[in-house]
Amino acid sequence: MAGPAFDLVFRVQLHDLFRWRRDVRHFRRDPLPDSLLDNLFSTANLAPSVGLSQPWRFVTVDDPARRAAVRASFAASNASALADQSAGRAAAYAGLKLAGLDDAPCHLAVFAVTDPAQGSGLGRRTMPETVAYSAVMAVHTLWLAARAAGLGLGWVSILDPARVHEVLDVPADWTFIGYFCLGYPDAESDAPELERAGWERRQDAAVLRR
Amino acid sequence: MAGPAFDLVFRVQLHDLFRWRRDVRHFRRDPLPDSLLDNLFSTANLAPSVGLSQPWRFVTVDDPARRAAVRASFAASNASALADQSAGRAAAYAGLKLAGLDDAPCHLAVFAVTDPAQGSGLGRRTMPETVAYSAVMAVHTLWLAARAAGLGLGWVSILDPARVHEVLDVPADWTFIGYFCLGYPDAESDAPELERAGWERRQDAAVLRR
Repeated sequence: MAGPAFDLVFRVQLHDLFRWRRDVRHFRRDPLPDSLLDNLFSTANLAPSVGLSQPWRFVTVDDPARRAAVRASFAASNASALADQSAGRAAAYAGLKLAGLDDAPCHLAVFAVTDPAQGSGLGRRTMPETVAYSAVMAVHTLWLAARAAGLGLGWVSILDPARVHEVLDVPADWTFIGYFCLGYPDAESDAPELERAGWERRQDAAVLRR
Repeated sequence: MAGPAFDLVFRVQLHDLFRWRRDVRHFRRDPLPDSLLDNLFSTANLAPSVGLSQPWRFVTVDDPARRAAVRASFAASNASALADQSAGRAAAYAGLKLAGLDDAPCHLAVFAVTDPAQGSGLGRRTMPETVAYSAVMAVHTLWLAARAAGLGLGWVSILDPARVHEVLDVPADWTFIGYFCLGYPDAESDAPELERAGWERRQDAAVLRR
């Protein structure tokens, strides 16, 4: 079976998608159509997975009490992180406005089934972490599809995984991968916010030959 | 700054890219141009990373002795995995021809710097695994860009990470993420090889509401 040919026009646009994908922290409050979200989950479900195990689980969070509890976990973890940084960095850090939690219309948690029956264990005997890696590629697929649809995604990792697990009341054998804000971005840029904020600069790809 | 608009034509093609990306095990032996590989590394370098840490490290493996040692690690791990499977599954498993290691013109190992200086630790205090997750998204970026360029990638995870680390003689503070075969695929398909081989079937996306 012959697959589609991806011509130069598409490949240039794909490169633009990678260049303009951002970790978004500032959102407009416009709600997202349910159909758009369903399409994103279907697309993410096409991601690679170890042994075709499709271990990812998507959890949308709408309940205000649960959202507030996740926000509180972020605030507590962020305060600890601030205490770790030197004074100058701490000011920059505080200025980064790390969470779009207050404005993003969609909150999404992603988990991986730790020991999925699907796939019968293929490919993960020596590297069980490939299950979590599969879920990460589903997140990344959703991220790119969202950006192509004009949406921004922000990854919130300054959280206590055990607390998020408890707040969302999901099965005990799920591993927390990440918490995500999704919505229409306030602005677009081809430079990461951390670069624009003077936190860090991008470096060239590091390649060794062996 | 306004970013590029991604029109419906592009978005349909992007969906095709996700649908037709495969984990490839059967390659033609034609070599890859160096410039193509360099472009793929530059593109992968645009992936998201925690705190803009860009922790990924790409290692191309050309030395025949090193390739043979990695192949031997795969063969040993694969034999153990076979011993784990029931008789009927074992036959299917053995038939899957899990490695394109013998034919693929390019062998690539990807590592993550475990505790990168770049990014100053931002975003990974409570979830240090986000460093490895960043490298996984770089792999996935490379995978998609490769497929768009007509190349196939196969992820080899049936390996002893410590042994690969030793064989490739990389810094002690690097974490092994995966070993990859890259080249022109023998065939294209919109169905995973594991599905075509009767190993597993794809399921719908699993979504919970909270």
